[in-house]
Amino acid sequence: MERTLFEPVHNDFRDSVREFIRRNVVSEYERWEAEGLVDRELWKQAGDAGFLGTAVPVEYGGGGEPDFRYNAVLVEEFARAGALSLSSGFGLHNDVVAPYLLELGTEEQKQRWLPGFCSGELVTAIAMTEPGAGSDLKAVRTTAVRDGDHYVLNGSKTFITNGIHADLVIVVAKTDPAAGARGISLLVVERGMPGFRRGRNLAKVGMHSQDTAELVFEDVRVPAANLLGEENKGFGYLMRNLPQERLSIAVVAVAAAQAALEWTVQYCRERKAFGQEIGRFQNSRFQLAEMATEIEIAQTYVDRAVLELNAGTLSPVDAAKAKWWTTELMKRTADRCLQLHGGYGYMDEYPISRFWRDARIHTIFGGTTEIMKEIIGRDLGF
Amino acid sequence: MERTLFEPVHNDFRDSVREFIRRNVVSEYERWEAEGLVDRELWKQAGDAGFLGTAVPVEYGGGGEPDFRYNAVLVEEFARAGALSLSSGFGLHNDVVAPYLLELGTEEQKQRWLPGFCSGELVTAIAMTEPGAGSDLKAVRTTAVRDGDHYVLNGSKTFITNGIHADLVIVVAKTDPAAGARGISLLVVERGMPGFRRGRNLAKVGMHSQDTAELVFEDVRVPAANLLGEENKGFGYLMRNLPQERLSIAVVAVAAAQAALEWTVQYCRERKAFGQEIGRFQNSRFQLAEMATEIEIAQTYVDRAVLELNAGTLSPVDAAKAKWWTTELMKRTADRCLQLHGGYGYMDEYPISRFWRDARIHTIFGGTTEIMKEIIGRDLGF
Amino acid sequence: MERTLFEPVHNDFRDSVREFIRRNVVSEYERWEAEGLVDRELWKQAGDAGFLGTAVPVEYGGGGEPDFRYNAVLVEEFARAGALSLSSGFGLHNDVVAPYLLELGTEEQKQRWLPGFCSGELVTAIAMTEPGAGSDLKAVRTTAVRDGDHYVLNGSKTFITNGIHADLVIVVAKTDPAAGARGISLLVVERGMPGFRRGRNLAKVGMHSQDTAELVFEDVRVPAANLLGEENKGFGYLMRNLPQERLSIAVVAVAAAQAALEWTVQYCRERKAFGQEIGRFQNSRFQLAEMATEIEIAQTYVDRAVLELNAGTLSPVDAAKAKWWTTELMKRTADRCLQLHGGYGYMDEYPISRFWRDARIHTIFGGTTEIMKEIIGRDLGF
Amino acid sequence: MERTLFEPVHNDFRDSVREFIRRNVVSEYERWEAEGLVDRELWKQAGDAGFLGTAVPVEYGGGGEPDFRYNAVLVEEFARAGALSLSSGFGLHNDVVAPYLLELGTEEQKQRWLPGFCSGELVTAIAMTEPGAGSDLKAVRTTAVRDGDHYVLNGSKTFITNGIHADLVIVVAKTDPAAGARGISLLVVERGMPGFRRGRNLAKVGMHSQDTAELVFEDVRVPAANLLGEENKGFGYLMRNLPQERLSIAVVAVAAAQAALEWTVQYCRERKAFGQEIGRFQNSRFQLAEMATEIEIAQTYVDRAVLELNAGTLSPVDAAKAKWWTTELMKRTADRCLQLHGGYGYMDEYPISRFWRDARIHTIFGGTTEIMKEIIGRDLGF
Repeated sequence: MERTLFEPVHNDFRDSVREFIRRNVVSEYERWEAEGLVDRELWKQAGDAGFLGTAVPVEYGGGGEPDFRYNAVLVEEFARAGALSLSSGFGLHNDVVAPYLLELGTEEQKQRWLPGFCSGELVTAIAMTEPGAGSDLKAVRTTAVRDGDHYVLNGSKTFITNGIHADLVIVVAKTDPAAGARGISLLVVERGMPGFRRGRNLAKVGMHSQDTAELVFEDVRVPAANLLGEENKGFGYLMRNLPQERLSIAVVAVAAAQAALEWTVQYCRERKAFGQEIGRFQNSRFQLAEMATEIEIAQTYVDRAVLELNAGTLSPVDAAKAKWWTTELMKRTADRCLQLHGGYGYMDEYPISRFWRDARIHTIFGGTTEIMKEIIGRDLGF
Repeated sequence: MERTLFEPVHNDFRDSVREFIRRNVVSEYERWEAEGLVDRELWKQAGDAGFLGTAVPVEYGGGGEPDFRYNAVLVEEFARAGALSLSSGFGLHNDVVAPYLLELGTEEQKQRWLPGFCSGELVTAIAMTEPGAGSDLKAVRTTAVRDGDHYVLNGSKTFITNGIHADLVIVVAKTDPAAGARGISLLVVERGMPGFRRGRNLAKVGMHSQDTAELVFEDVRVPAANLLGEENKGFGYLMRNLPQERLSIAVVAVAAAQAALEWTVQYCRERKAFGQEIGRFQNSRFQLAEMATEIEIAQTYVDRAVLELNAGTLSPVDAAKAKWWTTELMKRTADRCLQLHGGYGYMDEYPISRFWRDARIHTIFGGTTEIMKEIIGRDLGF
Repeated sequence: MERTLFEPVHNDFRDSVREFIRRNVVSEYERWEAEGLVDRELWKQAGDAGFLGTAVPVEYGGGGEPDFRYNAVLVEEFARAGALSLSSGFGLHNDVVAPYLLELGTEEQKQRWLPGFCSGELVTAIAMTEPGAGSDLKAVRTTAVRDGDHYVLNGSKTFITNGIHADLVIVVAKTDPAAGARGISLLVVERGMPGFRRGRNLAKVGMHSQDTAELVFEDVRVPAANLLGEENKGFGYLMRNLPQERLSIAVVAVAAAQAALEWTVQYCRERKAFGQEIGRFQNSRFQLAEMATEIEIAQTYVDRAVLELNAGTLSPVDAAKAKWWTTELMKRTADRCLQLHGGYGYMDEYPISRFWRDARIHTIFGGTTEIMKEIIGRDLGF
Repeated sequence: MERTLFEPVHNDFRDSVREFIRRNVVSEYERWEAEGLVDRELWKQAGDAGFLGTAVPVEYGGGGEPDFRYNAVLVEEFARAGALSLSSGFGLHNDVVAPYLLELGTEEQKQRWLPGFCSGELVTAIAMTEPGAGSDLKAVRTTAVRDGDHYVLNGSKTFITNGIHADLVIVVAKTDPAAGARGISLLVVERGMPGFRRGRNLAKVGMHSQDTAELVFEDVRVPAANLLGEENKGFGYLMRNLPQERLSIAVVAVAAAQAALEWTVQYCRERKAFGQEIGRFQNSRFQLAEMATEIEIAQTYVDRAVLELNAGTLSPVDAAKAKWWTTELMKRTADRCLQLHGGYGYMDEYPISRFWRDARIHTIFGGTTEIMKEIIGRDLGF
């Protein structure tokens, strides 16, 4: 079925993203993947193109369009281009971090940070996960102790997307360790603060140009002016913003799966075995038909969820449903498409091989499939 | 997510269907299942209630509402009540047969048949499948030979829904056997025509009160006035109406799966094992969460498809996607729900056991899952 | 691969079982299924044929062959004949109940019961499950209170295989309710004891001629001489005998799946669609190939487990592995074979339809798949 | 269940392989993976250790033990050590190439090649697959035209395991192109022959230190003395040796899956989330239990197949069953184990991440899962 989500303005925006990718990404992406990092310059180019902070009010340099459909178009296009490191990096900045700054930032903070956020001068990240603690916010061991007009921050974080490039990092820390989840606050750590150190750019199975790092905080003196929102209310803030993060990943998952299917249909048309196009073997045809069905069904659900998000009615449970189902579909699609490519699917030069490696993290980051099912199960009363 | 498909009028209609089921179905359904047939009277009651021919113009006694959402509400409610024999029987009448009469019927035919169709005096069926021929219309062996102002009909059909109660049967026959699919016509055979004989009410795994029969035609003289549409154009007519039939089944599949999930959630709340509600075991919780997710996603797709059908834009390919995916989901849901009931799930007295048996035919009738995948695969170019 | 499990004596025994089925079962089975019970006479015929108590020493009227391969052959042949109600009923008697009598029975008890056990005059059952308690032995509420040289038994049991025909029932009861699992004893209740009442023959999805019933005990005075083994040691006895019960079910599961596959291969050869044998469609061919593979692999494992059982080295964990995996395979095979039969698969007259219904209980009875996974998971240290 | 396949001599051999790995592989493997190639020296070390040509008669420098259990032990140990590039490379040499030389080689050829084969001085490969032709031997386009006492070889091959290190390559070529499969011969091409050129060491998703290359033959003059077996009989030779190749892969698949399970059990014991070992979550426990079950079942089947191979009775169909089922299990296990590791599973430093990447090729090389199903389906008569 035709998608009905978008209006002409979104399609124009999509054209500009495609043009951007053709000019600035296609010829460089291999190199970035090999280097484990995109050029810092790309963020500025994206800022110039108006892709960063589409939802940020114009007075702070943003697009002034809180419509999430722009966010969706942006990550979809990177996903469709096979550049999942970028859908992830820009998605984190626009879809995950921006809401914190917009909703919780004081006027002073907004003026300080949002113009750079939108221009690409300030790359952002959010630091939740800790070594050994995973998704369990109650188990956070990073602490921030108030000392005059500063917080003294100690702890370490891992798996931080944009971890190498990030200039601003929202750090989840315990300001009241005795209070468990009710003692969590959000502090913005800036590049260059003494005691803030980055670990290695982590070597991963895929997502090679998505810089993912460990961050270490040793007695970092963070000005109290960098506290986001109120002290000890971090848990609620995090919960409130998870649906948008999860939907953003779901949008990527479906767009990427659709792209992989298209490459594979193309491959099955061109490649012959035993005297016929391999897509004509009933097994291949059924595989493709199954994927086409599930991707279209997923798209319909995600598109509906985008409208709910815009309306402010997307529940965390529905975002969890979208997240786990689409990312498992993405993973399954990657696996099936690779197999349909035969030996070529295992070769780096075929885009399906990168997609297969990149796809694998999507059922894990932003909340694992298992955590999503817990959320949904609880909603059923268990 | 809340369904947005229906408007208040549909909800009112839904209330009336529920009321009807409470009054006329609940206390009788067990008996009908044991007898292998609903009371003939039920059809008249449904006619009186305005449930038959909602899409038929008022001048012929119908509801005058071509909006498929009424059809959807009707079958959904029977499905939710666990009365899948009825969603199937009424669905066949309203969603499958009605369009043939409305689109192809001459004014004379409409006046002759539609009032009875709407009042429940004329139960209808359509006879395509033949013993040994399955879904392959080209292989139809039933023939109709023109003889003056009659056709002489010979052949046999099987798996005919409403086969025992049917007063009017649209029979698919070859009028030009040499022409293959282009030699197929549709003839309306009426109860009592000499040579028209019903075989057994077939004993089935489930759908026990859905009468399903073999029909035999031996030199039945069918008046030429009973030809539906033009001679030899039957194949095109059949193709045109398949999407609505398949969508009707998909609507049933999702509603029934949702009902089964609700019974099971309830069961998992009431039943305890090893000291806790069985829904609290993580395995159960995940099973329920997975079903809840897939059912909601399926619902979103099917609801969107209903709107497309109303707009005249539902393609056969999209109907095929909806049909196979939702019925496989229905089957899978039935199996998982039964298992969650443990030994009780295998006992006839628990509704899940009937649902499990009834669900199984849905991936087969109206076009098997395999045929649906062929349709979709062909659409991908293979 | 050829099975290497059996020796010529077992093959001779197999021939006699086949002959027995041809003479005594084939023409009656439909009737028994319709009546919900086999003729009581069948048990005597089986006794006469030497099929009951093959492992019972000759001095008590048995076959004197503790080799489990005879047990396996017996249930395999009923399974292959599509008579799963009988593999279950005889399997319960021979493979589950016999070991209790042989290992725990006093000389007096053996002389009293084993001759009838072997002749078919005494049909046996074991009553563990209670309404609402499922597999949790600690939650047993049936009590046996010592009163002189009797126990006064009160409680009710459900899902009791052979529940209508049974003359001897081993009842699991609490003799020391405060002691939990360590307060369980086994008492043999005999037909005719005052206060011992049978409930309905339960109406089930399948296994229609396998009588499955509720049993009620109201102040039944059971002679202390009917205590099996020592008081309060029942839990250990039950645990010790579970592997053999589970392996017996696994043997049935594989044999039945193999039979279903053979029927389906045959069907796929005879039936044509779109101009060719349906087995020639690649999708069908792959389905059949997958089933053939998994059944052969399962057979190899189960055959190996039979040898371990004979050697006294089959662990409960390995029996659990065999049980869940083969019964899930049986269920999956049933579902796939039914689908390959198309509409015919849903008709009672095709044996695949009965197999599909009968297969479904096998992942539930004798310990559900979920309980099996718990056992295996615990063995891994969790 | 305990494996019963091996005798003390095999266990001694296993100890020596483990010791070899500890000394020569563990500290170097990371480097080889990064370099895309093992050190050439490793082959000599393996030769010195007696690991190459265990089945080659002692007079040619081999182990003189045609017992395939030695072959199995060797690849199992590399697989268990997470060194799948080596189980593949050595497996190709010992399990795939050796039989061709032993069965088809003339006395002169054996004396010329086998000593080097066993000492590690001659690394071997076999070149079947061509760009674009896949598994279809009839479509081979490489030709060898007789010219005096030479063949003039032209064509190109791809996905050649050991392609960079290989000193001897058995090349599949058409000597009678008009005869299709009956015009295929096997020619041994040696390092240094003019016109024999290696392409790139192919960059792959995994198996990084397994050199896999394209080979190009341009007017290579291969002495007629290098013809293996008879001219035009290559197809039969290839068919005859496929079972051993496939079983070798199956042996690797099970051993590797078992190792991955063990790492994951260990991880699930050490890692905690939400206050408990992650293995204690029922979902994790069930996942682990399912894998433990399937791996043990697979092992039993493969071990049985090894005995059949030794006895000369392993059919191509049974080898196909073992190959597809175990490699799909390997892939599935890799995916599930990675997920259980959460974010850590995606990091290169965890061995599960490499296993996940390496495992993926196993359902493709040595005959894809789809080809295996074709073979089995044909055996069923379709």
